[in-house]
Amino acid sequence: MSQNKEQILKNTNAQILDEFNASVMFDKELYDQDIRASIAHSKMLYAQGILTQQDQADIERGLLQVKAEIESGQFEFKIADEDIHMAVESRLTEIIGDAGKRLHTARSRNDQVATDFRLYVKEKNITIMAQLKEIVETFVKVASQHTESLIPGMTHLQHAQPINFGYHMLAYANMFKRDFERFESSYKRNNYSPLGSAALAGTPHNIDRFASCELLGFEQPTISALDTVSDRDFALEILFNISTAMMHISRISEELILWSSYEFQFIKMSDEYATTSSIMPQKKNPDVPELLRGKTGRAFGNLMSLLTVMKGLPLAYNKDTQEDKEGVFDSVKTIEISLSILNEVIKTMKVNVQNMESACKIGHLSATDLADYLVQKQNMPFRTAYYITKSVVSKADELSKDMSELNIDEIRSAHTDIANIDEEVVEFLNLRNSMNARNSYGGTSSQQTKSQIEIFEKWLESIE
Amino acid sequence: MSQNKEQILKNTNAQILDEFNASVMFDKELYDQDIRASIAHSKMLYAQGILTQQDQADIERGLLQVKAEIESGQFEFKIADEDIHMAVESRLTEIIGDAGKRLHTARSRNDQVATDFRLYVKEKNITIMAQLKEIVETFVKVASQHTESLIPGMTHLQHAQPINFGYHMLAYANMFKRDFERFESSYKRNNYSPLGSAALAGTPHNIDRFASCELLGFEQPTISALDTVSDRDFALEILFNISTAMMHISRISEELILWSSYEFQFIKMSDEYATTSSIMPQKKNPDVPELLRGKTGRAFGNLMSLLTVMKGLPLAYNKDTQEDKEGVFDSVKTIEISLSILNEVIKTMKVNVQNMESACKIGHLSATDLADYLVQKQNMPFRTAYYITKSVVSKADELSKDMSELNIDEIRSAHTDIANIDEEVVEFLNLRNSMNARNSYGGTSSQQTKSQIEIFEKWLESIE
Amino acid sequence: MSQNKEQILKNTNAQILDEFNASVMFDKELYDQDIRASIAHSKMLYAQGILTQQDQADIERGLLQVKAEIESGQFEFKIADEDIHMAVESRLTEIIGDAGKRLHTARSRNDQVATDFRLYVKEKNITIMAQLKEIVETFVKVASQHTESLIPGMTHLQHAQPINFGYHMLAYANMFKRDFERFESSYKRNNYSPLGSAALAGTPHNIDRFASCELLGFEQPTISALDTVSDRDFALEILFNISTAMMHISRISEELILWSSYEFQFIKMSDEYATTSSIMPQKKNPDVPELLRGKTGRAFGNLMSLLTVMKGLPLAYNKDTQEDKEGVFDSVKTIEISLSILNEVIKTMKVNVQNMESACKIGHLSATDLADYLVQKQNMPFRTAYYITKSVVSKADELSKDMSELNIDEIRSAHTDIANIDEEVVEFLNLRNSMNARNSYGGTSSQQTKSQIEIFEKWLESIE
Amino acid sequence: MSQNKEQILKNTNAQILDEFNASVMFDKELYDQDIRASIAHSKMLYAQGILTQQDQADIERGLLQVKAEIESGQFEFKIADEDIHMAVESRLTEIIGDAGKRLHTARSRNDQVATDFRLYVKEKNITIMAQLKEIVETFVKVASQHTESLIPGMTHLQHAQPINFGYHMLAYANMFKRDFERFESSYKRNNYSPLGSAALAGTPHNIDRFASCELLGFEQPTISALDTVSDRDFALEILFNISTAMMHISRISEELILWSSYEFQFIKMSDEYATTSSIMPQKKNPDVPELLRGKTGRAFGNLMSLLTVMKGLPLAYNKDTQEDKEGVFDSVKTIEISLSILNEVIKTMKVNVQNMESACKIGHLSATDLADYLVQKQNMPFRTAYYITKSVVSKADELSKDMSELNIDEIRSAHTDIANIDEEVVEFLNLRNSMNARNSYGGTSSQQTKSQIEIFEKWLESIE
Repeated sequence: MSQNKEQILKNTNAQILDEFNASVMFDKELYDQDIRASIAHSKMLYAQGILTQQDQADIERGLLQVKAEIESGQFEFKIADEDIHMAVESRLTEIIGDAGKRLHTARSRNDQVATDFRLYVKEKNITIMAQLKEIVETFVKVASQHTESLIPGMTHLQHAQPINFGYHMLAYANMFKRDFERFESSYKRNNYSPLGSAALAGTPHNIDRFASCELLGFEQPTISALDTVSDRDFALEILFNISTAMMHISRISEELILWSSYEFQFIKMSDEYATTSSIMPQKKNPDVPELLRGKTGRAFGNLMSLLTVMKGLPLAYNKDTQEDKEGVFDSVKTIEISLSILNEVIKTMKVNVQNMESACKIGHLSATDLADYLVQKQNMPFRTAYYITKSVVSKADELSKDMSELNIDEIRSAHTDIANIDEEVVEFLNLRNSMNARNSYGGTSSQQTKSQIEIFEKWLESIE
Repeated sequence: MSQNKEQILKNTNAQILDEFNASVMFDKELYDQDIRASIAHSKMLYAQGILTQQDQADIERGLLQVKAEIESGQFEFKIADEDIHMAVESRLTEIIGDAGKRLHTARSRNDQVATDFRLYVKEKNITIMAQLKEIVETFVKVASQHTESLIPGMTHLQHAQPINFGYHMLAYANMFKRDFERFESSYKRNNYSPLGSAALAGTPHNIDRFASCELLGFEQPTISALDTVSDRDFALEILFNISTAMMHISRISEELILWSSYEFQFIKMSDEYATTSSIMPQKKNPDVPELLRGKTGRAFGNLMSLLTVMKGLPLAYNKDTQEDKEGVFDSVKTIEISLSILNEVIKTMKVNVQNMESACKIGHLSATDLADYLVQKQNMPFRTAYYITKSVVSKADELSKDMSELNIDEIRSAHTDIANIDEEVVEFLNLRNSMNARNSYGGTSSQQTKSQIEIFEKWLESIE
Repeated sequence: MSQNKEQILKNTNAQILDEFNASVMFDKELYDQDIRASIAHSKMLYAQGILTQQDQADIERGLLQVKAEIESGQFEFKIADEDIHMAVESRLTEIIGDAGKRLHTARSRNDQVATDFRLYVKEKNITIMAQLKEIVETFVKVASQHTESLIPGMTHLQHAQPINFGYHMLAYANMFKRDFERFESSYKRNNYSPLGSAALAGTPHNIDRFASCELLGFEQPTISALDTVSDRDFALEILFNISTAMMHISRISEELILWSSYEFQFIKMSDEYATTSSIMPQKKNPDVPELLRGKTGRAFGNLMSLLTVMKGLPLAYNKDTQEDKEGVFDSVKTIEISLSILNEVIKTMKVNVQNMESACKIGHLSATDLADYLVQKQNMPFRTAYYITKSVVSKADELSKDMSELNIDEIRSAHTDIANIDEEVVEFLNLRNSMNARNSYGGTSSQQTKSQIEIFEKWLESIE
Repeated sequence: MSQNKEQILKNTNAQILDEFNASVMFDKELYDQDIRASIAHSKMLYAQGILTQQDQADIERGLLQVKAEIESGQFEFKIADEDIHMAVESRLTEIIGDAGKRLHTARSRNDQVATDFRLYVKEKNITIMAQLKEIVETFVKVASQHTESLIPGMTHLQHAQPINFGYHMLAYANMFKRDFERFESSYKRNNYSPLGSAALAGTPHNIDRFASCELLGFEQPTISALDTVSDRDFALEILFNISTAMMHISRISEELILWSSYEFQFIKMSDEYATTSSIMPQKKNPDVPELLRGKTGRAFGNLMSLLTVMKGLPLAYNKDTQEDKEGVFDSVKTIEISLSILNEVIKTMKVNVQNMESACKIGHLSATDLADYLVQKQNMPFRTAYYITKSVVSKADELSKDMSELNIDEIRSAHTDIANIDEEVVEFLNLRNSMNARNSYGGTSSQQTKSQIEIFEKWLESIE
């Protein structure tokens, strides 16, 4: 190979390698956290007599200028800078000169990146909690409009018992409330500052980790530098919490898709959230819930990725952990946009109460109510009640009616044992009565549904 | 096909199908939870006037007999019983007659299985927490014996700075403490009773869910039956918590394997935990930490399984969720045995302090200390200090010594700028001094390590 | 602690440890492979003059006796035997004496377990291929009965265009055919014998690996002992192939569940595959397809487990890989029972052709046909055709008819531009004609569907 | 809310929604495939008389111009265009007018995206195969330089038997060869053209799918449109194949990291692939192999993502599958850069043969050779030989020598049973002789290693 060619090849390799090693193209996402952490660090260094007042002032001014440059789009991120910390620091030194270099005293990239990333995750926990609260509010609001709207309660995707649609909505309020609590718990459990852990073992400089910790809004400094520089539990937690929330989103999405089908026609999504076909003028596709359901995949994948990365790493920092960020950024963006859009979908969907109620008349949803009636009022053994109920189901089928539509004569004619049954039984087979009969705590009766709404309203107030 | 053959084929298919549908062969693990939940349910039914005192007494007596039969190995689990609930109930009815059938009033298998499974997970959270506490104690104990034992602190598996072995052990104490906190948080967040949710919508019977809840030691009943019967967040949480803990175990295992190698020889595992070879008399294999590291795989896999199962399920109960238990049982058993064995490994390993300290003399671990000295004491710019340090490194290499072994004349001869450097510098290059210099909060100095131990001791006491 | 207590504790620990280390309780699954591999090994050793004829004869006889004992249930597996290889060997030595010990010449547990496991996977590839072939046959058979049965072809779970149900069934025949090809390809790619690789580097004994390879039905011996003892690619492949097949099963299961719902009522599963409720006499649950769908989770999880186990393992054998088998056994059992049961479900389901055809009349499925007609026959720009079609859709809605039910006058009245449209257009809007119009290769027309059936029949014959 | 504010909110929502729905920002990666597929489609349409010659010529010219614009960076991708197909088509129509709109005849976005994506995956299979071949060549080349260089062969990270470093390198050649074969097999199995499948059921237009198929270099058209539009098996296969290859990369990376440590010092990576520390002048970190090992995580995660996405999707196309591409792009880029960089690392690393050979003298690596000698030459039972070997090991330890360093007198003095052992035994304990003794097929002897190299060279030639 000619020397020239060799040189070109070497340069190409070098470039590929730089791209491979560099994280700046994705960790620039952390510019704000990086700058805030550096300012806090400089203030602490000054307070401890490690930096002069002038140096600290220059550093703070310079960092704020870098921030402004980044936010205005002026700042050029270069692969050569390797990561966001170097990118900020080298620009800082251009602006303020040697003082910029003094900023790195008593810290290392290992604790710096841990600090930036923890700040990011901590703050995202908060904003996602706010979104979760909002979506709970939306479900509660829709629920409060539909405490009387009948819909077939299903198990195994089969009509089972009549419930009200508000009650159905509240099931999701419960899920997202649990998600809220998980994020909240992770937030508290990981609210510790890595800053000052240095490379792996602390620093000989006389620093005050409690001071920089307080400036950054963390509760306390972490207690082992060695553990801290490679601890990514906080990142795993947010990935898991997002996965669980996305799983819940996939469940409501599945239902929105089913309910929008010709077969169900329970809801009509707002035109914005259901795309028309460019060749079939009659068609409206539930693209948005399908995409929401599909995005579950990436949330699960990102979780699996980081678990895999962390497996078997010896202490302390290893470069493998540079792979921690892209998945978290992606999962965070995914949950943010997903919650935001789902919220709008739920708010703007039209609920077709009439179709839901008609659907309740398919499948003899009040069959259990008859059996229960016979047991409770006639003191019949359940087994006997079950067989008599079966006869009434057959009678209804014979008459092409739903059991809830039978009159007293039709019921009486179904079986000799109930030939004289009290007329009140008709009321027990009424679908709305059936729904309201389930009045146990957590049950579907309108009354219980309203109590549930109150519980949620109190909870929502409590976290304001 | 002859009719006979057809019949045989049909029977075979039926048998395969029964095996496919039945869960009793694995959910029998929940027999104790099932029986306790049934007793609590019967007491509540009696208190509410739904069961007679006699019936309740019979049920309780019968259930305790079933329990005894299971525990003594007399009980025969049959595929035909389908699940543990049916297995228990049908035996109960054999023993006490019709009263056994009345037990199922106001509940369904959907809330019953949710109750049993939650009880199981709740109790496993507690026992795993106890094990985590114990392993933290072990690490703290080993740490307290080695606050002065030098070991090369590594990043990128390269010697970086001298730390003490106690400090290294405490990094793991930190990890397992975080695991403890995660299990504790999940325990609290999921301490709700599903009992009385019935099939999906509550029940028309006048039950008292708070009463059965209290009898079972749950904090409160769940607030939506519809959500409850298909909620498996509590199972996902324990799978995730176990995954994270297993990941931590994989990290210490990796280190135990490295440390046991001929190249490191930092520790010697007790003969029980390192297997000899049947053909190589000289060989001792770290089988146990390897297996611990390998078991991370199944913990991650079980988590991924249940996340997959739950994706896209419409409300409410679907048979898919029957797939929730085996993975949890497997992960629970994995973490239990892993923590138990790791605990013994750590307790019984012999730490070869001499080899660790010798290793510290490879790699000029106090190089940063020289640079720091020049900056702090000579007020030299870091860049200059860095280059002078490099000369001293070269000098040491030339003399086949570690930098920490140089005498004052050797140091002075390395570079003209330090030809008159104060003799005290020798002390700064001493490895132990270097370790103790890192005295910032969370740092490796013996003093800070001891403070850390105190923090852990207080924490351990606080959870007694 | 009293010495007695200490001893008990030590024994308990030893027992836990034995259970932790031992694999015999799950790898006994490989007893048949282990015995066959040992017989092949002994024959080779005899042929190479390493074993005497008598020893070989004793070994073979002894091994066959062990096999018989295992198969008759007489054999007692003990934790103390650690793994299936030791269990077989120690019993062999009991039966035939010292000759049993000579069997282990020129092999090690590392190549022995690799051989057993490869044999197992290889043979399971073959049996799963047979099952996949069978299920393709079933889908083709059902397809051939329904090449004229209309069903709404869906995208986004919305009615799109009329297709025939046979065509729909064939989509699954395609999926399972691809699965077949994947298993076949993995079978061929991994048909190599590890036997004779010994611990990691081959053996000084004069063995003939080609001979034992041939006896076991492998194509060739593997070419690197070092690679072979830790290669688990063949296991990963079967886990992936099973995952993909289970994913396909989850898709048809989802459709079976939808089709069985009150909303669809397209099929009725045989009573054996749909469970009735113990309290709702009217209810039939699609338990089987739900469970099939749920079992996808464990297949994915097992794949993820082994990928995790293998990550970052240095050469050569590490104990971590003992974790390779349980997941494979579980996935194999899962796919076997799943294919077997799905096959019966498909064979025995009742297809409600009338309901499917009625459903085709919802959603103006022939709308694109009108637009296409206007473009092709009237030479109209598509955009114009699209708007005219929209008018006809509105007209149909106004008349509460499906577009396919409009007569020529109704069509002509929808828009002035088609006031004189040829009467033949009515035929184009006919649903059956619409289906048959899609006569391109791979299209849904009955003719193309029949061609596709022929392609499958030829393929099925070719693999007989 | 004021009307103005409402409007702003609505616009914001609309924008978020557009971003959520649009795939153009990532599927633009497929521009080249999209344009080639469109040209092939236009040629087929012309050949079938569906497009005029002029229209086809305009379309082709226009598409080539779009391609040029994209490649020169002039083309502006807009969220509003939704996906790459629309982006290209709308620009085409700008350039050539109405003819652009005629291109979409007889196809739909569903088959178009499947075609583009299959082309991409197909071509990436080929380029990755080329890279795998290259890396196999590199390992073979390094191997051929080290067929005589001793290194301790390890199991359980413990010295086991002496092997040669060339042999060790070839283990990886075997792994990457298997990867090559997997990609090749997937390439062949998925070489089918979706084009002309249209939305889900084929098209009424008289198209020739074989013609467009041939133009695009596919082997045949797919045989079911319904299956084709939602089949992503080809994408899952490449994700799995990449995962397995990355797993192999993680294994060599682990070894490179170990070998670069102070403890091992077996290799020295080229300065380009090992980063120096900014504060520790003595330190060189194996950043590159660490990052390679870490990237395994994303490969596994991407596989899990798509498996999750596909689970439970009913036929045919669902928007969920839009989530198929980003993970594949990411995994493809990951394997490409990883193979490229690993190749350079291996090529440029310096092998420290002396250190490897010295390491062989630790651990009595020829212990099994003594036992084997006693069995073979002295006809001793293995058990007896084992115990005598143990005595020799003790003797060596006593003399602080490795067994391979003992002279005949030292050996004879170890045990009375070998007091007169033949002098030749010394040769058997020699490490090089021990290595060469393992001369079975696939063994580590230099001769077998050279044979293995020849096998690889033939294979490499065969695929040229």
